[in-house]
Amino acid sequence: MTRSKSAKAENDYRGTLRIRRTAIDTYKENVAYLNRECSIYRAEGFQALSKIEIHADGKHILAVLNVVDDDAIVGVGELGLSEQAFDQLGLAAGTAVRVSHAEPPRSMHAVRRKIAGERLDLKDYRAIARDIAENRYSRMEMAAFLVAATESGMDRDEVLDLTRAMFESGEKLDWRESFVADKHCIGGIPGNRTSMLVVPIVASHGMLIPKTSSRAITSPAGTADTMEVLARVNLPPEEMRQIVQKYRGCLAWGGTAKLAPVDDILISVERPLGLDSRSQMVASILSKKLAAGSTHLLLDIPVGPTAKVRHMQEALVLRKLFEFVGDRLGLHLQVIITDGRQPVGRGIGPVLEARDVMQVLNNDPDAPDDLRQKALRLAGRVLEFDPDVRGGSGFNLARDILDSGRALAQMEAIIDAQGRQEQVFEPGALTMEICAPEKGHVVGIDNFQIAHIARLAGAPMDKGAGVDLLKKLGDPVEKGEPLYRIHAVFPADFRFAENAARQASGYTLGEPEQVPKQFVES
Amino acid sequence: MTRSKSAKAENDYRGTLRIRRTAIDTYKENVAYLNRECSIYRAEGFQALSKIEIHADGKHILAVLNVVDDDAIVGVGELGLSEQAFDQLGLAAGTAVRVSHAEPPRSMHAVRRKIAGERLDLKDYRAIARDIAENRYSRMEMAAFLVAATESGMDRDEVLDLTRAMFESGEKLDWRESFVADKHCIGGIPGNRTSMLVVPIVASHGMLIPKTSSRAITSPAGTADTMEVLARVNLPPEEMRQIVQKYRGCLAWGGTAKLAPVDDILISVERPLGLDSRSQMVASILSKKLAAGSTHLLLDIPVGPTAKVRHMQEALVLRKLFEFVGDRLGLHLQVIITDGRQPVGRGIGPVLEARDVMQVLNNDPDAPDDLRQKALRLAGRVLEFDPDVRGGSGFNLARDILDSGRALAQMEAIIDAQGRQEQVFEPGALTMEICAPEKGHVVGIDNFQIAHIARLAGAPMDKGAGVDLLKKLGDPVEKGEPLYRIHAVFPADFRFAENAARQASGYTLGEPEQVPKQFVES
Repeated sequence: MTRSKSAKAENDYRGTLRIRRTAIDTYKENVAYLNRECSIYRAEGFQALSKIEIHADGKHILAVLNVVDDDAIVGVGELGLSEQAFDQLGLAAGTAVRVSHAEPPRSMHAVRRKIAGERLDLKDYRAIARDIAENRYSRMEMAAFLVAATESGMDRDEVLDLTRAMFESGEKLDWRESFVADKHCIGGIPGNRTSMLVVPIVASHGMLIPKTSSRAITSPAGTADTMEVLARVNLPPEEMRQIVQKYRGCLAWGGTAKLAPVDDILISVERPLGLDSRSQMVASILSKKLAAGSTHLLLDIPVGPTAKVRHMQEALVLRKLFEFVGDRLGLHLQVIITDGRQPVGRGIGPVLEARDVMQVLNNDPDAPDDLRQKALRLAGRVLEFDPDVRGGSGFNLARDILDSGRALAQMEAIIDAQGRQEQVFEPGALTMEICAPEKGHVVGIDNFQIAHIARLAGAPMDKGAGVDLLKKLGDPVEKGEPLYRIHAVFPADFRFAENAARQASGYTLGEPEQVPKQFVES
Repeated sequence: MTRSKSAKAENDYRGTLRIRRTAIDTYKENVAYLNRECSIYRAEGFQALSKIEIHADGKHILAVLNVVDDDAIVGVGELGLSEQAFDQLGLAAGTAVRVSHAEPPRSMHAVRRKIAGERLDLKDYRAIARDIAENRYSRMEMAAFLVAATESGMDRDEVLDLTRAMFESGEKLDWRESFVADKHCIGGIPGNRTSMLVVPIVASHGMLIPKTSSRAITSPAGTADTMEVLARVNLPPEEMRQIVQKYRGCLAWGGTAKLAPVDDILISVERPLGLDSRSQMVASILSKKLAAGSTHLLLDIPVGPTAKVRHMQEALVLRKLFEFVGDRLGLHLQVIITDGRQPVGRGIGPVLEARDVMQVLNNDPDAPDDLRQKALRLAGRVLEFDPDVRGGSGFNLARDILDSGRALAQMEAIIDAQGRQEQVFEPGALTMEICAPEKGHVVGIDNFQIAHIARLAGAPMDKGAGVDLLKKLGDPVEKGEPLYRIHAVFPADFRFAENAARQASGYTLGEPEQVPKQFVES
């Protein structure tokens, strides 16, 4: 029951703002721009605390508000929307919209309970995933959720519930076959481009392996970035389905289908924060794989002093968690623990990695043997998912397929089907060699630092940028002998990479017996 | 040792960008705007992950990068800086700057250890406070720290270390006296403007009480907002010192001195997240009070069903933590637990609260008695810090000072000294009464909801906006009788407040015996 003394308020309130596209790319966050002199909505009230909700024609988006003191950017009576926000709202410039205070997402109550140490259930995780998918969470709110939901804060049933909620948040690919193989590495090892070898080998055998990969976020190259050196990777779902049907495999970017979109959003906060909790990793990987329609998954966990997982004990705990969640979600899952002591192959960065991959497929005597061996091991294990392949015979089968040139032919067919890259990418023309400061043996290569240098050099944005390793663990070197070569395209990046390499080359020299032992399955 | 094949890179790298002020107010976050076509620095490389560092003339700032596709906002070769960023860098438009990737703040390593459950030491907290003070943390990174450092994550020695680190992060006021009294409420109770009564009473007695207050962040009014209805509160430190010397007290905004600046930055993340952990509260309040030069502090902890602290047990735990940290930092601290079952006084919002305060000072028979009684209790306890005031006699002493008109005279003198407000503020002209839907007694008033409605109505930005309570706990009401009145200045705000009040008035009616018992010290 209310009694209003002001009928005038009713009428004044009719005011709306006309939207315009403000040509500012605000990355993952919607931003709206309001002139400070706006008489309809006062900017200060909105800015300090919460997002605003913008609505018109039954559509709405949430955005952070920036206040503008320049009529050229946004005039009084207008509401500027950043490129992301404008596209997301999907209305024409000039459309009248209304603005209101956005309530904090309801599921933040559950997040606060989690912060207080409570156990959440599937309903809570579903509500959180839904709010995140609808862009209701700020990056700050997501950070709060992610920190509260680290492994110390979640039991394995919660990881299962979170995985399920993330999986359900998006679409699911349907390959219309009952057996869909996949492989995935938990990441952290530069140059680890085994998928581009495993897919043609496994597809040659006739097993369905439709690989959807990500682009690099914090690493110098993702499989999608590297494959793009050779072929188009941006495939509409229907086209991808036709290619897979015909060639039994593909190497496509997974971003065209909306697979577990909550995962992508959370990753955009996790990575810059350097969070890498077991529970998030399991939920992230398995939700994506389930959404990609995989039925059989081989998971690669590299272990090494500068890998994500540093000790065998840790790898085993992680394996159990993957198995627990995978089993309950009906995914046939095998874990393989591999050598993560150093980068795989030589090249780091899209062009250089694509070169390594093609050398292996071509049976080139210069091909990096560690990449070849690892790819054969993984492909062999995937092939053994086939009931007709005898346990233990996968490796030899994979090797036969590779040595015979069938894997290369399959790869060429997949490249042609996806659309062969017309642009020829070369290694970056600005080069510099980082050399040994003394005689010795290579006893350590820091995965993080090498990846960091390759990234500063411009990878993966510049396909040709990166690092080419000339020495690997155990190699003897003379004083002044080159350890690796930096490739860059742009001078500023070249300098950034050089500065980083000068501060810390990422290489440690010493006596042969100091090379860390390979404490992994062989 | 490096060998560069490209001397050209050396020269190309000389490129710099010229800064311009982009008239966008990005609130608490520095934003830099770079044209996508910029040939010197490529936008994509910077945007995805980290902040950029902008340097010139030995100065540097950190900023988030937005990419611009409109030359009118920022041209190629220019770097736009948001108003905050431009002011912080402090260089003239057109100055040549360089840009580099900002490394994540070093102390994030400690934050990640905290997330993993480790105990941090004073060195860690100092490093975190320093990085936050230098704006090296993004809001996301601060959220991660705050969640990791909730009470479940910190022992009391850590709270002590954090308090010390926050205190040391800024300046310290020096009143050149050995006895400096202060009072503080942990917050959460609308209308609780006792400081504006305690200060004149205590100052009349001759005890030094230089009160620096905050402006409201999430509440409808802070003491600084309300005092500003009567006087200027934005006092330069030297002027404040002179006023305090002469009048023994002041009611100033604390923001002109840089007291524990880390606290302000953390609060800007804590509040929108709705985090309110004990450890943060203690570190926040005590670091500010130490920086304000207080030697004797009376702390008010209101307890009630919709107060920050809901049970006596919780209040006692909080009191122990305040005492532990206060004692170790040399602060003479007393805690008083008060009635937090409902707002204090009648008015909520700067003008309405100032009216209540002046009624009490004027011994107006219409003055809200609960505000008067609470202020006398608190003032009495502060007066008892004086060794010459007999234990238990403070209340009567405070009452004598108030009843005699000496407190009013002292307040008027302080107002004149600070600079009497020339503008006359009136309660907002748009009004609406929220009425009882049925006959009964008021058995509940939700502090949160009433504060929320007052804020939506425009408080504290519009001094006259807010809520005027016409009924309090235990009052009998007839059907249709007004419970409270909303005041607003702007129609949109008026509607926001009306909608919220219609959804939930914040009042519960029932039988007299349902009024919650006052489970506090009397």
